[in-house]
Formats: sequence, structure tokens, C-alpha cells
Amino acid sequence: MPRRIVIIGAHAAAVDAAVAARKTDRTAEITLLTTEKHAGYSRCGLPFVLGGHIPRFKDLIVFPQTFYKMMKLNLLYKTTATNIDTEAKTVEIQDKTEKRKLPYDSLIIATGAFPFVPPIKGREKHGVHVVRTIEDGQKIDKAIKDGAKSAVVIGGGLIGLEVAIALVERGLKTTVVELIPQVLPAMLDTDMAKLVHEMLEQKGLRIIVGKGVDEILGEEKVTGVSVGGEQISTDLVVIATGVKANTELAKKAGIATGFRGAIKANARMETNVPGVYAVGDCAESINLVTGRPALVQLGTVAVRHGKVAGINAAGGYALFSGVLGSGVTKFFDMEIGATGLNEFFAKRNGIATVTGALSSKTKADYYPGALPIRVKLVVEKESQRIIGGQIVGSEEVTQRINALSFAIQMHMTVRELAKADTAYAPPLSETWEPMVLAAEIALRKLR
Amino acid sequence: MPRRIVIIGAHAAAVDAAVAARKTDRTAEITLLTTEKHAGYSRCGLPFVLGGHIPRFKDLIVFPQTFYKMMKLNLLYKTTATNIDTEAKTVEIQDKTEKRKLPYDSLIIATGAFPFVPPIKGREKHGVHVVRTIEDGQKIDKAIKDGAKSAVVIGGGLIGLEVAIALVERGLKTTVVELIPQVLPAMLDTDMAKLVHEMLEQKGLRIIVGKGVDEILGEEKVTGVSVGGEQISTDLVVIATGVKANTELAKKAGIATGFRGAIKANARMETNVPGVYAVGDCAESINLVTGRPALVQLGTVAVRHGKVAGINAAGGYALFSGVLGSGVTKFFDMEIGATGLNEFFAKRNGIATVTGALSSKTKADYYPGALPIRVKLVVEKESQRIIGGQIVGSEEVTQRINALSFAIQMHMTVRELAKADTAYAPPLSETWEPMVLAAEIALRKLR
Repeated sequence: MPRRIVIIGAHAAAVDAAVAARKTDRTAEITLLTTEKHAGYSRCGLPFVLGGHIPRFKDLIVFPQTFYKMMKLNLLYKTTATNIDTEAKTVEIQDKTEKRKLPYDSLIIATGAFPFVPPIKGREKHGVHVVRTIEDGQKIDKAIKDGAKSAVVIGGGLIGLEVAIALVERGLKTTVVELIPQVLPAMLDTDMAKLVHEMLEQKGLRIIVGKGVDEILGEEKVTGVSVGGEQISTDLVVIATGVKANTELAKKAGIATGFRGAIKANARMETNVPGVYAVGDCAESINLVTGRPALVQLGTVAVRHGKVAGINAAGGYALFSGVLGSGVTKFFDMEIGATGLNEFFAKRNGIATVTGALSSKTKADYYPGALPIRVKLVVEKESQRIIGGQIVGSEEVTQRINALSFAIQMHMTVRELAKADTAYAPPLSETWEPMVLAAEIALRKLR
Repeated sequence: MPRRIVIIGAHAAAVDAAVAARKTDRTAEITLLTTEKHAGYSRCGLPFVLGGHIPRFKDLIVFPQTFYKMMKLNLLYKTTATNIDTEAKTVEIQDKTEKRKLPYDSLIIATGAFPFVPPIKGREKHGVHVVRTIEDGQKIDKAIKDGAKSAVVIGGGLIGLEVAIALVERGLKTTVVELIPQVLPAMLDTDMAKLVHEMLEQKGLRIIVGKGVDEILGEEKVTGVSVGGEQISTDLVVIATGVKANTELAKKAGIATGFRGAIKANARMETNVPGVYAVGDCAESINLVTGRPALVQLGTVAVRHGKVAGINAAGGYALFSGVLGSGVTKFFDMEIGATGLNEFFAKRNGIATVTGALSSKTKADYYPGALPIRVKLVVEKESQRIIGGQIVGSEEVTQRINALSFAIQMHMTVRELAKADTAYAPPLSETWEPMVLAAEIALRKLR
């Protein structure tokens, strides 16, 4: 009898799990299910559709239906998993017409995360949005097309700012409100965040940090928000204060959860119940620097999780290596990236650090069009190892983050980085690579 | 008495040596000398001035004269070192007016390299150029301004092609002739070189590979070249068949030379004569993969050499870590980079390899403006370690080369790279980083 693999979810982690499972076991019966009417689309692309960079929401659908056919994957849309029975090895599912039970040999839980909406007074009003699904994006798009002229985004993290920028690009007078006294608090240290903050203000975004929204104002429909005594009128509110792992179903089935409520998984991405795997935004990882559980809800982690779980669920053997939280984004013409621990998280983990930061150019100084870039390294004092990097610049940030990510993963010391062999050509870089010079600066503090 | 440091040379390696020496010893008397009338300029920028990307040749001068004053460096222009006496510790120098001896405590030889001109019949004719100095560049620029309409570049390596492209950009009908049956033979394997070759032909460059120039034709002035029986008429010939380490002075002084005639230097960049250092294009390095002597004549290596020698010459202690030959260039809108060993050099060093190559996009597939990129990895079979990488693509090539360079330096296995944590955002990269996918492909060949 063919192996039956059920995957609850049908986005990044789930689809990559299904593909890896199919490659491992040609005959397995693989079923994916999603509560949504779209599957396998890139949530990360939503702000860029809103901003007009990508023409249509449906462009975000990475795999066409023919792909699932070709890979012989059963994909169930608008279907909710209502119960998991780990003894009987069945998943109870509910679609428009019926409730039934899917038997499984291996189960992969890819239930993702849901937007966390803090208990702000008035959050239920018409005109208050979140950004998680294509439908969420379409609602905001419609509000703009219906004439919204101003917006308040609650949350100055990655998604909040990406959406705020999209709204500015669409012509809305936009204000971002962030409770923590800096933008991108999970990604950047205060000094690096300041560069981003200043650029965004220059581009016309109003940013209020260190204050929360006290109330969302308006009758039935939102008309404004109240922030530290100030009333800001707005046609639109977007709440982007993070997401929470969607684990209700797993918990009900006796599957253990851990860090920040995410499902506990070992290096094979297997939960405490043998044969049941957890992947993506609902599942824990191990941080490669601290060795401790972490919850990194990024697409790259989701697909890496999915691949490992898919191989294991199909009878293969694969291990997940851990996370650094390497991430990057583009705000207008500025690229912002980070990997590993920043100073704040290092301190919180009890790690004594020194840092090295340096501003340079993206091309030879004399080459027309050379643009600014700033690199900051976080170095563990004891081992002299690089444990984090943050970069804000006009180009070539992503792959520098990858270079630092490789350095961290391979336990490179700051001394080794200061002597590294790097590539150079006048139209593409400076002779002395800024990462190398930042290492030199950090090294001097260690002497 | 202050320490006397003499540096023969005044470009990349020499100036970085002087700066490092000054930082190490505030009171040292530091003298640099150059036979040229310009010092401390970027030779790498010459083709980009010729092509019109950089306005003036003098823009390539990285440090103004005020810099040398500020750093208290004595810089002698148009001055030739005619003899080194390692017993008496003096350098005999000759300028326009006099011959004299400079005593030294530490000597740094940064005599660079000179263009190697193969013994082609007719190479002495008027209209035959090399590209090494600002004066060389100015002569070619003048020939174009004087009405040259066509050119033949002998040599399809990095400099040859950079110059050929500049000539195309200036409107000259240009042909490149390369003896080896591919372009960029020192940098790329045949499969990757083919991508570059095809793109260059599409851009209007004629490329002849696998054939040499039999004769440069013309009376006093060049009128054509003869290549495998074909006569190609041309107004201009540029010979770019590599450079040779300039070691005559060193050899005369009894300083040992080694690989490809370059000056032997230990990890402190010190020659067989204590207190005498050698840096830049005239000095050997150790290849980080093979552990064997190598001669990598790149600006990045020169400045790294210079820094180490400068510290040591001034009484400090620094070690050079070795080279991978990481290099990159930009041909029209294509970026081309390589690091470590390619298949050819691995084989020559007796290393059994597998490779993984993959074509991908520079942004999410659905993001408008996503451009092609191809990554090739060379993996040592025995250790499964990455020992080389080659990338041809439209953007973000340089820092991927740096990322692979870090991976090679840190002995990353292809298995580790296949599981690496990388950064992603739709406008900046694909979810699965092509370097990671190329590792996956190589890994499959090892199973």
C-alpha cells in the first residue's frame, strides 16, 4: 500500500514539504489542504503588489495548478482540519459540503501563523486591516481604490513598514506608530535603525516611535487613531504587530509546544508524536548562535523546514541545521538586511560583544554612481567569532548578508574576516570590502 | 633615531604598506618611489575611463598629494630604484637630476608587473599598445580621438575583454583574438565562459578563440593583423596577454624568486633577506585551497599584501592568510565573478571534483525585472568541501563571490551550503538562493 502523507497547509513550508516528499517517495499519496481559496502563494510579495511593483495579487501564486497535477499532489482548497487523532492516525477535515477523516502514515503540520492584533480599543471597526492573505491585500487595495487618502500603520517592523511604504507609493498620507522606541526592533540595533528612520521620513512617511495607539476612533468606520494624546485622522488602519504561531489544532491533539507557543520539533522537524512533523511559521527552530529554541517566521526558514520534513515524512533522512534569522528587505531605494544576533539580542542571551561599524561606498569611490552602504558586525568577545551582522545600503546588501551568514555558520572569527580574500572591480565594489574593514574596527576593540 | 622604511613602488600595495607602517610606527621615516609621474592610482579603472564611464584618467588617482603630507610619507615621482644593497641596507635611486643612496632599516619591494608582450612579428609598429599605466590609457584614448575606427585586442582575459568592451563603447569595430579556445581562461571553465562569449558577440564584439595572431601588419603604422590565414584590417592593436612580475632589481640583489618568477615571500611577506619584504604583483602568495605557491596579480591581493608588510616593516606583527583569487568584473550589463579553483585548475592540481551548476533569477520569479544568474560550484570529492565558485549574472554577483570565498576559506562542505541560512525578499532574491541549490545539485553527485 502506498504511504499516505497528509500536509495541513498549502503555502511555502507545505508545498516544499510535498515536493521533497514526492522526490523521496514516487508512489506516496500526498494530500495538502488549505482553508484559503489560493494555495502556494508568496505572502512576502503582498506589500509589493499593494505598492504597484507587481501587477496582480494572483501573480504571487508561485505554482500553477498544473504543477500539483504533474507532481501528483492532491490539493484541497477551502478545507479546514478540525481534528487530529494521533492514535488512529487520522485528520478530520471539513470543506463546504462534508466532514470526513483522512488517514495518514505521516502528518506534516504547516498551519502557519495568524496576525496578532493587540487589544486596542476600536480594533473591530470597519477600515481596520491586517496583511496576511491575498484577501487581506485585496481589501486594502479596494479601500485605496475606493478613495482612502490617509492611513495609519500600527507596527514599525518589517511588514508594517513594507505596507506603509506601499501606501505612500499609492499616494496615501501615511503614519507608522511603533510602541518600541525604534523601527525594525527585531532586526536592527538603534544606531542602524536610525538610518532607516531618517530615510523614511525624508520620503514623506511620518513615524512615531515609543508610543502606542490608545484607541482607534470612529463610529462604525475608522476615522482616526489616538496616539499619546494626539488624534491622527485616517481613512485606513493596518495592524502589523507581528504574527502568532497557529497551534490550536496541534495542542488539542497533544502535540507539545515551546518557545513563544510554537510547536516543538527536533532536527528532523518531528514533534513529540512520532510520524508527526511541524514546519514553517508554526514551528520552532534552533538558533545557530545561541543553540537555544527560536521562532523565525520567514519564508526561507519555512521552505527549509518543509524540505527536511518532507524527506523524513516520506521515509528518507534529513536534518535541519538551524536558523540565523537572515533577512532582508527593500524600502524605496534602500536595502536593509540582518543576520545572526544584534547587540540587543546578544545581551539578552548573556553574550558579551564588541561591534565594528563602517560607512563605505558600493563602488570604487571615483566610479560615478557609487552609493552609500553601512556595515555593522557584532562579535562575541570570548571567542572573537562573528555572531551578527546588519547592513543598510543602496545595493548589494542581500548577498553581503549571505556572506556574513556563511561566516557565522562556519564560526569565522573577526580576525579571519579582517584578512579575508574578497572580490573587487571599480563598477562593483571598493578595493577594501566594507565587511572586512568593519571586522578590522571590531578587532581593534578586542586588542 | 627613527626607523627608516623605503618602499619601491607607489601604487596599491605600496601605498597600503606605507599607511599600515605609519599606523604602526608614528615616527618612522617612510619613503615611496615610483618611476611614473602619477602615484597611487587604480590601474583597474583604466578600461572604464577608456569606455567613458569615468570622466578623466586623473580621477583614478585615489589619494591626493595632501594625503601623503598628512600621513607624513615622502613620495618621490619619476624616480627609479637602480640597485639594492642588502648588506649596506641601501637603495640606489636615480631621478631626473641625480643618483643617490637611500639607507633603510626595512625595505618593501612593490615593483609590480609589466605587460608581457609575446614575440609577435610587427609588435614594434606604431599603433600597437599595452594597458598598464595612465600614459598607456591616454595613448589609446588619443588614437581613438585621432579617428581610429577599428581595433584588434590580442588576449581574451579580464583586461583584454575590459579594454575591448571600452573600444566597442567608443564606437570602434573591435575584434578579440585569444590563443586558448575560450575567453577568460584563467577565471572560468569552458561552460561558463560560453555564456560570456555569446553575450559579447551579441553586443557586437567579434571574438576569435583558439587562434593566435601570426603577424601585425603595416608599414611603420599598424594596418591589420593576420590570424590563422585571415587578414583583419585595423587602426589599433592592444596587446593584453598578461603581465609578468617585475623582479629584475630583486634578483640582482640576491632575493629569491619562485612561482612564475615572482618574489618568494613568507606569511609575513618577508623575502629570504630579513628586513626585505615583497608585495603586490611582483610577489608570490599561498593558495588557500592547494596550499601551494600562487601568483594572483589583483588589486585586492596587493592591498592585503601591503598592509601585512607595512605592519611588519614598522616593527609590528601581521600574517598574510593566503589567496583564493576572488575576482569580478562587469562586461556591459553582465557581471562575472570567480573564486577558488575552477575545474581546470583543480584537475591540474590533482584534485578530483564534482560540480553543481544552476540557472536562476536575481529576484522572485514573479517580481518584474528579475534577471538571469548562473552559479557553478566546484567541490572536492574527497572532503566534500567547496573549493571554487563561478557566477555569471546580471546583478549581485560580487557579493555572492564573497560569500563563496568565505565558505571556501572556512572549509564549508557542500552539504553545509545546501542547508545554509540565507536572506530573501521578493525584490532582491529568490526564496531558494541559487548558491544553495547549486550545492544541492553537486551533493546529489556525491551520493
